[in-house]
Amino acid sequence: MNVEFINPFLTSLLNVTSTMAMMELTPGKPQLKGHDIAKGDISGLIGMVGQQTKGSMSITFEEGLILEVMNKMLGEKPSNINEEVSDLVGEITNMVTGGAKNLLGEKGYNFDMATPVVVAGKNHTIAHKSKGKKLLVPFTHESGNAYIEICFEDT
Amino acid sequence: MNVEFINPFLTSLLNVTSTMAMMELTPGKPQLKGHDIAKGDISGLIGMVGQQTKGSMSITFEEGLILEVMNKMLGEKPSNINEEVSDLVGEITNMVTGGAKNLLGEKGYNFDMATPVVVAGKNHTIAHKSKGKKLLVPFTHESGNAYIEICFEDT
Repeated sequence: MNVEFINPFLTSLLNVTSTMAMMELTPGKPQLKGHDIAKGDISGLIGMVGQQTKGSMSITFEEGLILEVMNKMLGEKPSNINEEVSDLVGEITNMVTGGAKNLLGEKGYNFDMATPVVVAGKNHTIAHKSKGKKLLVPFTHESGNAYIEICFEDT
Repeated sequence: MNVEFINPFLTSLLNVTSTMAMMELTPGKPQLKGHDIAKGDISGLIGMVGQQTKGSMSITFEEGLILEVMNKMLGEKPSNINEEVSDLVGEITNMVTGGAKNLLGEKGYNFDMATPVVVAGKNHTIAHKSKGKKLLVPFTHESGNAYIEICFEDT
């Protein structure tokens, strides 16, 4: 996998949060997964399968951030993560992956998306089990952090 | 999705745990997801994509059960969930889905598997975001419970 393949996911998340929630997240430097691990309170995960590749993507949010996204998008701020927040994370996962799929398709890198799964639980960690490189981008915002992680392996 | 499609996953998990860990899990009744939710301490998730379908599968374990599986398979029982346990859950996820894929393929229901992702965190919950039916099977064992959940939707 090319290290640049993380960028369409990064761009796509920034687009989704800025257009839908009017929030500007600050992306950190894309990195090969090493010290940093994706850790948060709610995550959207999705599988991707193409003819020459397969992989997985996760977006992980700290509670403070996703509740603020909910507030900015829907005008209501629940006191904690509930089913509506979970549905929102599922939608964001689909939108971000769909956006990245289009950008990567233009470069001749094609895959189909599975359906998303959302995991909720205080301080959970995510580990992608793939033979390929694992790429991570941290995002910061005054209300909390987020992480995107992807990996693809050749089939 | 046919409700019977959960059975190959159920069979496949029982095969894996009985042959590799010499442990007999007791499956509960397969059910459309309603009251029960998959809740546990470590989960393996995987996406599935076929020409006419896409979906997701999760296996969720309570800590006591997965540590006992680890003990029976590798002769060592860590005091809590660590990276080796996480790798084991990734392997089990691949094996169970691979086994179910073969069984479903014999019935003409074909899909490709993405790569698994493992989530660790006390008492997390899993929500599959799919338009299709969500099917769940609980498993019990004296050392803890497990859940398989799958959903497929037509593309």
